[in-house]
Amino acid sequence: MNPRSCDLLIEAGWVIPVEPHGVVLENHAVAVDEGRILDLLPIAEARLRYAPRERVELPQSALFPGLVNAHTHNPMTLMRGVANDLPLMQWLKGHIWPIEAAVLGPRFCADGAELAVAEMLRGGTTCCNENYFFPDAIGAVYARLGFRCRLGLPVIEFPTPWARTRDEYFDKAAEVHDAFLGHPRVSTAFAPHAPYTVSDASFERIRMLSDQFEIPVHCHVHETAREVEDSLREHGQRPLSRLQRLGLVNRHLIAVHMTQLTEAEIALCAAEGVSVVHCPESNLKLASGFAPVEALRRAGANVALGTDGCASNNDLDMIGEMRSAALLAKAVAQDAAAVDAASALRMATLDAAQALDLDGEIGSIEPGKQADLAAMRFDDPETQPLYDPIAQLVYAGARQQVHWVWIAGEAKLRERELTGMDLPGILARAREWRERIVRLPRPA
Amino acid sequence: MNPRSCDLLIEAGWVIPVEPHGVVLENHAVAVDEGRILDLLPIAEARLRYAPRERVELPQSALFPGLVNAHTHNPMTLMRGVANDLPLMQWLKGHIWPIEAAVLGPRFCADGAELAVAEMLRGGTTCCNENYFFPDAIGAVYARLGFRCRLGLPVIEFPTPWARTRDEYFDKAAEVHDAFLGHPRVSTAFAPHAPYTVSDASFERIRMLSDQFEIPVHCHVHETAREVEDSLREHGQRPLSRLQRLGLVNRHLIAVHMTQLTEAEIALCAAEGVSVVHCPESNLKLASGFAPVEALRRAGANVALGTDGCASNNDLDMIGEMRSAALLAKAVAQDAAAVDAASALRMATLDAAQALDLDGEIGSIEPGKQADLAAMRFDDPETQPLYDPIAQLVYAGARQQVHWVWIAGEAKLRERELTGMDLPGILARAREWRERIVRLPRPA
Repeated sequence: MNPRSCDLLIEAGWVIPVEPHGVVLENHAVAVDEGRILDLLPIAEARLRYAPRERVELPQSALFPGLVNAHTHNPMTLMRGVANDLPLMQWLKGHIWPIEAAVLGPRFCADGAELAVAEMLRGGTTCCNENYFFPDAIGAVYARLGFRCRLGLPVIEFPTPWARTRDEYFDKAAEVHDAFLGHPRVSTAFAPHAPYTVSDASFERIRMLSDQFEIPVHCHVHETAREVEDSLREHGQRPLSRLQRLGLVNRHLIAVHMTQLTEAEIALCAAEGVSVVHCPESNLKLASGFAPVEALRRAGANVALGTDGCASNNDLDMIGEMRSAALLAKAVAQDAAAVDAASALRMATLDAAQALDLDGEIGSIEPGKQADLAAMRFDDPETQPLYDPIAQLVYAGARQQVHWVWIAGEAKLRERELTGMDLPGILARAREWRERIVRLPRPA
Repeated sequence: MNPRSCDLLIEAGWVIPVEPHGVVLENHAVAVDEGRILDLLPIAEARLRYAPRERVELPQSALFPGLVNAHTHNPMTLMRGVANDLPLMQWLKGHIWPIEAAVLGPRFCADGAELAVAEMLRGGTTCCNENYFFPDAIGAVYARLGFRCRLGLPVIEFPTPWARTRDEYFDKAAEVHDAFLGHPRVSTAFAPHAPYTVSDASFERIRMLSDQFEIPVHCHVHETAREVEDSLREHGQRPLSRLQRLGLVNRHLIAVHMTQLTEAEIALCAAEGVSVVHCPESNLKLASGFAPVEALRRAGANVALGTDGCASNNDLDMIGEMRSAALLAKAVAQDAAAVDAASALRMATLDAAQALDLDGEIGSIEPGKQADLAAMRFDDPETQPLYDPIAQLVYAGARQQVHWVWIAGEAKLRERELTGMDLPGILARAREWRERIVRLPRPA
């Protein structure tokens, strides 16, 4: 039998395909051709069967599906740590909103997104669920850099530099959606900000359009107890009930945060196929509460992981977020077996892909899927000795140990070096934005 | 004025002295001579005033006091991630105890401690509060490598390879204490395992001897609700009340975990000068509970940070532990202002030094103290832009960005390279222990 030619053969000490669940394959190889995974097989067999144009040997590393950050506001990377340790409203009104009012525009969003892509790739993240203004500018960055994403089409009931009126938000949403229609890596989602900032009328319009466009609806829901109380007062309903009344509680819904949930609401999410995005570090930092992650998972709901934006995290580190999610879920559930390492990894890959309705294409290492892959080296003292590769990845590994990343078979990180990105330029622009932001007047 | 000669001048973009609290000094230098901090002053002045034998320029880095890990079982680094996601008793009885029974000895403890020193130094930790068997072997490693520690003198009411009888535990404790008496870096502490494994008689003996030796008493206390319930049944008292009855609740006591505390117990800790060691990641991973950190701090109790051992964490990462502590405290206290970044750093440095009764010597960058220092570079994309160096260190920084570390003015890490340590040999021994451990019979 003649070996079959292919673009790439990655040989790893351990391959963690995510599907089947919890499996680790020792000394396996992934063959890639035309951007897709062609095969997953033992290295010895792969060497007989394939004649790759490029071979990457990673005997001390684990290869896993590229991580999918299911909730982020990437331009806010330029506001990393600009205000910390403050109650939510003081943080928003005293810092975040005044800064946004002064800097928000396509240049800020593009520069922030590009810094975020550098950070995400250096940490094994290959896809994100973006949620910010100027999606046209952000999407152009992702398209240029070949980064995969669901681009949020923002809707909020007040004027911003992106749009002034409700109609303008919807017109621009349709425009951006059309601009990326059929793009191989950049697709869209509606991104109504939250039940407390979006009207019934807009939600109804979103429901209709999301059905028509066949795209998800990405929304902050039940982030805090205060949000639920306010909704009860204003609408006589909890936010999730209101969304249900408006026809939005279905498998299109990506409900982010969800720290306040009754048992009935947990059952509802499972029954209706809602995807919940858990952002443990943001929920902790803003003292928003504890999402009932294990209860949701046991009920059969899909739970994905996200970092939230860098103004409230303060990073886009999905490795760290997996660790935080796995650790926190145990204490919240009072059960050390809750959210084991393999489940945390699944929440950051295949379950996140499912939330984004991209699980047919990404989220696991299976033949036919896009070759979105990441490798973490385990030969540092921080990850030795090695007993359990999945536990090592989640509980001891660091994003700095991620040394190779591919999107659709293109190497985006080669032995820690970003390809096709001007990192000095990106950092110089980040410093320029910092100079502008620190000079802004802010309340004490 | 002629410049004064000194051993070392470290020039940093930012110096975070920890005392005074919350201060960041831009473009400052630390002058070091004979192992101690001589001066802390602006770089421009330092260049006029000092003629150093070595100058280290770190314009993109923050210099901070070496981190103090207030609770660890370092030889267990060889069991990193050997069993995960299991309830405490299944984890102990099914995995940890059978492994310890098979491997525990001076060689295992020395090899594990050496791997731990490599990991700690690479993450900015310069001192630890050790708690494990064979302190003679562990202490010899620390002494040889020049690592600072409080060496726990273990006491437990059952036979182990270290000692068979109560008297043997105490005889060996006295021996080890004497062996390190007057050592410049290695001092001792009594380390009774926990109230549920140590008798009243032993606690009374420890109280007497710790007074005589003038050393702290390092003990797991109120780790779980179960421990408190069992004590009520067996002793008719909560463990902390029992320790109080036995005269141990005083400023010698280093009480580790403390997830279960009444308001009266919080007030007692503050009034008696007890140091509480908070191990957030271990408490989460074993689902032990949430320590009331902010309530303790507000009451005026000293709270230090520790990682616990690598079998339940799974790392010795004090940067990550600061982040976990700061994030978790906010959600537990329902207050985003709880345990701010500067407080988290203090808990990992000066407050930890105070717990170990070493705050006269270490824990802050103040003239006269030991030059135990660490530097983190901020020029990676993960820590750009930079608004607040302390928040960046705690909320965005990673231990992999720590690039220089000194203990008593000796460089232990130089641009990420460990000095005076045989890292390949350490890793080879770790792999040998792994081979032994994976071959041990373990219950399914």
